[in-house]
Amino acid sequence: MPSYVVNKIATYDARFSLPAGAGSDSLHTNPEYCFAVALVETEGGLCGTGIALTLGDGNRLVCEAIELLAKPILGMAIEELMSGFGRMSRRLADDPSFRWLGPHKGVVHLALASITNACFDLWAKSRGVPLWKLLLDLTPEEVVRLLDLSYLEEVLSEQDALELLRDKLSSRPNREPILQRGYPGYDTSVGWMAYDDDQVCELTARAIDQGFKAFKLKVGSPDADRDLRRAAMLRAHIGDSGTLMFDANQRWNLPVAIRMCQELAVYRPLWIEEPTHPDDIRAHVVLASEIAPVKIAAGEHIPNRVLFKNFLQAGALHYVQADCTRLAGVSEFLTVSLLARRFDLPVPPHVGDMGQLHQHLVLFNHIALGHEALFLEHIPHLHSHFVLPARVNEGCYETPQEPGASCDLKLTAGRSI
Amino acid sequence: MPSYVVNKIATYDARFSLPAGAGSDSLHTNPEYCFAVALVETEGGLCGTGIALTLGDGNRLVCEAIELLAKPILGMAIEELMSGFGRMSRRLADDPSFRWLGPHKGVVHLALASITNACFDLWAKSRGVPLWKLLLDLTPEEVVRLLDLSYLEEVLSEQDALELLRDKLSSRPNREPILQRGYPGYDTSVGWMAYDDDQVCELTARAIDQGFKAFKLKVGSPDADRDLRRAAMLRAHIGDSGTLMFDANQRWNLPVAIRMCQELAVYRPLWIEEPTHPDDIRAHVVLASEIAPVKIAAGEHIPNRVLFKNFLQAGALHYVQADCTRLAGVSEFLTVSLLARRFDLPVPPHVGDMGQLHQHLVLFNHIALGHEALFLEHIPHLHSHFVLPARVNEGCYETPQEPGASCDLKLTAGRSI
Repeated sequence: MPSYVVNKIATYDARFSLPAGAGSDSLHTNPEYCFAVALVETEGGLCGTGIALTLGDGNRLVCEAIELLAKPILGMAIEELMSGFGRMSRRLADDPSFRWLGPHKGVVHLALASITNACFDLWAKSRGVPLWKLLLDLTPEEVVRLLDLSYLEEVLSEQDALELLRDKLSSRPNREPILQRGYPGYDTSVGWMAYDDDQVCELTARAIDQGFKAFKLKVGSPDADRDLRRAAMLRAHIGDSGTLMFDANQRWNLPVAIRMCQELAVYRPLWIEEPTHPDDIRAHVVLASEIAPVKIAAGEHIPNRVLFKNFLQAGALHYVQADCTRLAGVSEFLTVSLLARRFDLPVPPHVGDMGQLHQHLVLFNHIALGHEALFLEHIPHLHSHFVLPARVNEGCYETPQEPGASCDLKLTAGRSI
Repeated sequence: MPSYVVNKIATYDARFSLPAGAGSDSLHTNPEYCFAVALVETEGGLCGTGIALTLGDGNRLVCEAIELLAKPILGMAIEELMSGFGRMSRRLADDPSFRWLGPHKGVVHLALASITNACFDLWAKSRGVPLWKLLLDLTPEEVVRLLDLSYLEEVLSEQDALELLRDKLSSRPNREPILQRGYPGYDTSVGWMAYDDDQVCELTARAIDQGFKAFKLKVGSPDADRDLRRAAMLRAHIGDSGTLMFDANQRWNLPVAIRMCQELAVYRPLWIEEPTHPDDIRAHVVLASEIAPVKIAAGEHIPNRVLFKNFLQAGALHYVQADCTRLAGVSEFLTVSLLARRFDLPVPPHVGDMGQLHQHLVLFNHIALGHEALFLEHIPHLHSHFVLPARVNEGCYETPQEPGASCDLKLTAGRSI
């Protein structure tokens, strides 16, 4: 087998305009979907593609941070790098020149996400398998060596992580049929903030035809009545058996969040997402108590495993929306998934992109960690830009069979080396 | 009076090498002190200088973020801008193109710090007064309009902030003598991690001669015995009456922090600083309980008012080390100082630079908010690079009398316009 030595790291500032109104929420009126792309290349021409989502001009800051931060992996063979990736992740996260800019959050952490995701993609391609299969074929010891568990010792030691993985080995066959059935999806693209009522109804009808059973609606409008009217409309449209989620994108302060969540509760949401500021653990705890039994989802702006630990210890959320393009890539996503398992909470990832990468990780979470196969967010806007776009049938993600992590973009294919 | 319209925003990536061993701690073995400098200029040639501290190559990311983020203040007259700066601060912090990179933390928030500090410097220069005097001359209403109090509503409403300021007006004369006496300092530069024992003793003796009575020692060495030996040595050297603080710079995990703080307690520190990961509120709470009555200080890596609120609500720290080059500048520093007043906790700012800027803010905190005049950190390494370096006599900062915020650097003086 070739040794696949990393000999070049490039970045690409990929930006995609969206159809009118798509992607809009209570904070982002007219978003551009951007990926800060890390391209990690080997002499033989193999290239790993990593992505981190951003929403505009700041994307180039993340690209520059990738270039500055990735230097230590140059010259390493991919198997050597991945055999102890947890150590490398910690080394990059604690680089003395860049650590001050976080630590473990913001631009430098997004850069680490993209670099890490590129390494996992390259690794899977070098072994000729899809990422989900590579992860499932690792021993518990090999999985744990991918992780940086520092500052989690009192909740999730290496030994705890190993035991959790070993404990689930014998029951894996019960969960493997998901590979044939496909992993359920839910549709966020029916309910963007800027869409008018007719558009929401039309898109929902189409999504129902495509087999989706769960839908998300953006709330947090300056006009509270509009939120309530749209919620009533969508609940009526999908009927009693459909699953509905509301997403406020951090817009409300605590007093407003309490009031709005109480009013929205009559439409029986599975969860209300990002009801207030993503750093405000205490506000989430107070809110959870005030609006029970309505559940809270959050995570797309919880920057790292340490803050996730604090949210989980405090009982501040019920659905752990980890995002491997916000956390430090696949590695910290797996760490947070293990943490969530300790607290017995489901992990429906946040997916601003296509779920290209997360479709691999939810399969690992279900089969290897025993996480419930709840559902994976689906947003179709960038479908045509991927070399191997996710395939969704009857509302379920088909299990990808091609080598890698499904993140190659047509834009960057063949651009480098 | 000229209208002082902002017509140019420039940045300067200022880097300063330090003497051998200076600035070293448990995480930063060989730091470079850097300022991401914002220069906000008016047609008449007046220039406000803002600084945000970083520790190396990442400095240029903050400079670029300044250029991207500052555009909305171009063309505004300084008095117009500052008459409702809280609104502008929120607008910049929530810019839809950059908010995803935080929100309210990391590179974009450091950029906002530098921009904000430049605006306050320009404002004070345009009025021909030092910043502390400008702030003290504002009405409570004018102060509150400088602040973004969003997401603090349940703890510090605008009304709460106004009442707090009004409540302290009549007793100001009791606290104004600090302007003549000078604000006490403490010396961090005696106890860097890389200094050997002789160097620590020699520098401490010199600092005592200069009138300092309080000293900080870096701990968190991989060799715990070294930490304990140095602590014992410095306590012996300064005697029973000296004040001693230990700073672990986030190195320990919770179990190690508990053990080390318990062992260091015998040397009677006023506080132990950054004992563990700065995002780990719960670990600070557990630690505070385990090591009581030893006190905890933190703040240089608490990124914004929302996380500070959570720390204070949880009782996770005792000394609030706000830093106006980490928070969103002077504005959010004042917000956190008001929050700390609500929880009756002192604010000894974190000062990685010269305390050039904070020397103004601690005077406001003491006189206008009634904060205890505890002491202000002093690190002398960049003294010679400032146009108007802070003057320290008998261990106290002399009150600056020149217009502005004392942040102009010789490097950038006269470079622009």
